[in-house]
Amino acid sequence: MSAPTGGMSRARCVELDRADPLASRRGAFVLDEGRIYLDGNSLGPLTHAARRRVQEVLDHEWGRDLIAGWNLHGWIDLPARLGARIAPLIGAAAADVVVGDSTSVNLFKLAASFMRDAAPRTRVVTELGNFPTDLYVLQGLADLMPGRVELAAVPRGDVAGAIDERTALVVLTHVHYKTAETYDLAEVTAAAHERGAAVLWDLSHSVGALPVDLGSARADLAVGCTYKYLNGGPGAPAFLYVRPDLQARLEPAIAGWLGHEAPFAFDDDYRPAAGVARHCAGTPGILGMAALDGALEVFDGLDLIALRAKSLALTDLFIGLVEARCAPHGLELVTPREPARRGSHVSFRHPEGYGIIQALIARGVTGDFRAPDVLRFGFTPLYTRYVDVWDAVEALVAVLDGREWSRTEHRHRRTVT
Amino acid sequence: MSAPTGGMSRARCVELDRADPLASRRGAFVLDEGRIYLDGNSLGPLTHAARRRVQEVLDHEWGRDLIAGWNLHGWIDLPARLGARIAPLIGAAAADVVVGDSTSVNLFKLAASFMRDAAPRTRVVTELGNFPTDLYVLQGLADLMPGRVELAAVPRGDVAGAIDERTALVVLTHVHYKTAETYDLAEVTAAAHERGAAVLWDLSHSVGALPVDLGSARADLAVGCTYKYLNGGPGAPAFLYVRPDLQARLEPAIAGWLGHEAPFAFDDDYRPAAGVARHCAGTPGILGMAALDGALEVFDGLDLIALRAKSLALTDLFIGLVEARCAPHGLELVTPREPARRGSHVSFRHPEGYGIIQALIARGVTGDFRAPDVLRFGFTPLYTRYVDVWDAVEALVAVLDGREWSRTEHRHRRTVT
Repeated sequence: MSAPTGGMSRARCVELDRADPLASRRGAFVLDEGRIYLDGNSLGPLTHAARRRVQEVLDHEWGRDLIAGWNLHGWIDLPARLGARIAPLIGAAAADVVVGDSTSVNLFKLAASFMRDAAPRTRVVTELGNFPTDLYVLQGLADLMPGRVELAAVPRGDVAGAIDERTALVVLTHVHYKTAETYDLAEVTAAAHERGAAVLWDLSHSVGALPVDLGSARADLAVGCTYKYLNGGPGAPAFLYVRPDLQARLEPAIAGWLGHEAPFAFDDDYRPAAGVARHCAGTPGILGMAALDGALEVFDGLDLIALRAKSLALTDLFIGLVEARCAPHGLELVTPREPARRGSHVSFRHPEGYGIIQALIARGVTGDFRAPDVLRFGFTPLYTRYVDVWDAVEALVAVLDGREWSRTEHRHRRTVT
Repeated sequence: MSAPTGGMSRARCVELDRADPLASRRGAFVLDEGRIYLDGNSLGPLTHAARRRVQEVLDHEWGRDLIAGWNLHGWIDLPARLGARIAPLIGAAAADVVVGDSTSVNLFKLAASFMRDAAPRTRVVTELGNFPTDLYVLQGLADLMPGRVELAAVPRGDVAGAIDERTALVVLTHVHYKTAETYDLAEVTAAAHERGAAVLWDLSHSVGALPVDLGSARADLAVGCTYKYLNGGPGAPAFLYVRPDLQARLEPAIAGWLGHEAPFAFDDDYRPAAGVARHCAGTPGILGMAALDGALEVFDGLDLIALRAKSLALTDLFIGLVEARCAPHGLELVTPREPARRGSHVSFRHPEGYGIIQALIARGVTGDFRAPDVLRFGFTPLYTRYVDVWDAVEALVAVLDGREWSRTEHRHRRTVT
């Protein structure tokens, strides 16, 4: 172990953990002591509170109270209540966020709703290599609304230049799912506004990992995922945000009964609810919402500045240790080195990426692989320890030195980001 | 107790329960012995199997295996696997049904997908008084796709006459949520086909309560809810069906990543999956899907003919007893008397409907109220006993005789159908 480690040692990591103001939050999670889980950017772990909330729904709310659960336990208000809990994490007012459906469906709802009345502007600008569902939903929308939606998906470097006087909407992901590169949300929003375009931000890889301030950026629209850094559970319901002054103008694309002004009047005619609630569509899935309700407890009273500081400390440490100790092995950093441009995960490129990730998993370190050659490691500040970073790099060194990837079977691995 | 009861008695009901081939299925449900739950048409009760499946997800699949759950526990296949389990209940082949999203979103997806390529036909015919979300989604669609969708919502009696050479799609609910009146699915489908129109059936109040045969009717499209007679839990994911020969023609309206031919290739370009899977959009909500997975166990090997026979026996008995014993109280039957035209719930009209339902709930009999004056009672053959019907009518007689409704507070009651 004579490789350079930039003055860092395992003992120093233990000290950092001891001094970490967020260290106690790990106790909120159902995680074995020895577990090194660097994939919370894909699926956050179960919290004790989430388990308890789902258990309550099974044992009492649904299991015992049945239909009365809708009133007795406020199920019907969960979309708004959960929205209000997420709001402070993204710089929004409580009333401007609502939870329900998937990120894909919410992206469709907001983009369709906005483009419906955007004439004479018809262009939607997005980035090639954006998370696939964002691209697919927009492609589908252009097909569904020909003449009113024309999609311009351009390389990342050309996005700013592509926003012109034909552009109605810019759809971007704040933190890139592969590279973790961030956009400057305020700057891009301002530039789009200058050209008369609105921006829809996908916050899936940001929310709960770094502070987001939609409000001061005057961002127009946003959607995001709750099963990554918010730990809502596999396929947990997503959220959407609409800037207050836009809310009354945007007619919902999917006019469901839960978005009606008076859903329980059972009227024949649709009248949209005030505010973001109009974008609710069908009956909310209560088991998923209850898990998210519990999961959000760990964010109560959390200092997002401290969260961000630890996130950057962890990713800095990981980049530094990997580059110091794995130098001969040809790992290429694809995540920005500059902290301000980096989300909460770190990706390296390596031709044997798939096998390396499998070998790491066999050693108890969970990261993930993104085709064709990206190794991705998420550093969730709420439960990842500095020693985890140290030990993960130890494992990576062992895998690389031992060429352990050649011993893993090369079957197609399917994972959900 | 001298009112006429048509030769029926509580003792006779006990005998009927003893001879009931479905009686043992009640044991699958988490229901107190004394509970009379006549609202399974709104929210089905928890089953032991559903609770167990959710518990497994919490304890092992998510809680322990984390991201590996997607592969290890087949989460990613749940939309198709659950669709295959529902298929035999609606006369469909396993491959033609998929589970996900809400009924509202699925209705939007199929109607939008179909109308996208329906030109020169632009008309969608539906029924005034249809379940509100069906009407709202179609109204929203007409606004979203002007020139390509024009909605004709007509009174029930005028539906057949409204299907003309401009009509592309007819959207109807098989069993009416208020009256329980059924359409003859095969006959209406054939009549629409004769005029060159397709039919989208909402099976929310049918599936799991009476046999449905989409296949022999050559029905085009269908959606349905799984939290009523299928007992999937509050807001459980819905299903959708597309007739095999239409599947390749219908481009998805919401082109999400889970509907991609190769979701894990993370390509920039959307290519729809073969079959109904293309209508999947975002990441499936696993907690809700797991509950439904467990809930469907009670349907394994179930004889739908026996189910329907018991359903009709229960609703016949209820109608007979109410009319015999509550005659002076002015309850007006709104459900068809003719068995073939009746679903699995029974509704009466009464000006004090709201208060009567509240008083019944106070007596341990759960039915529900639909504005302005409908009392609705669901008879789920899997757990409702003949004695429950007897005892429910006893309670109703007591409420009516004692004018107990005037003692209930008249606050607005919100329930989810």
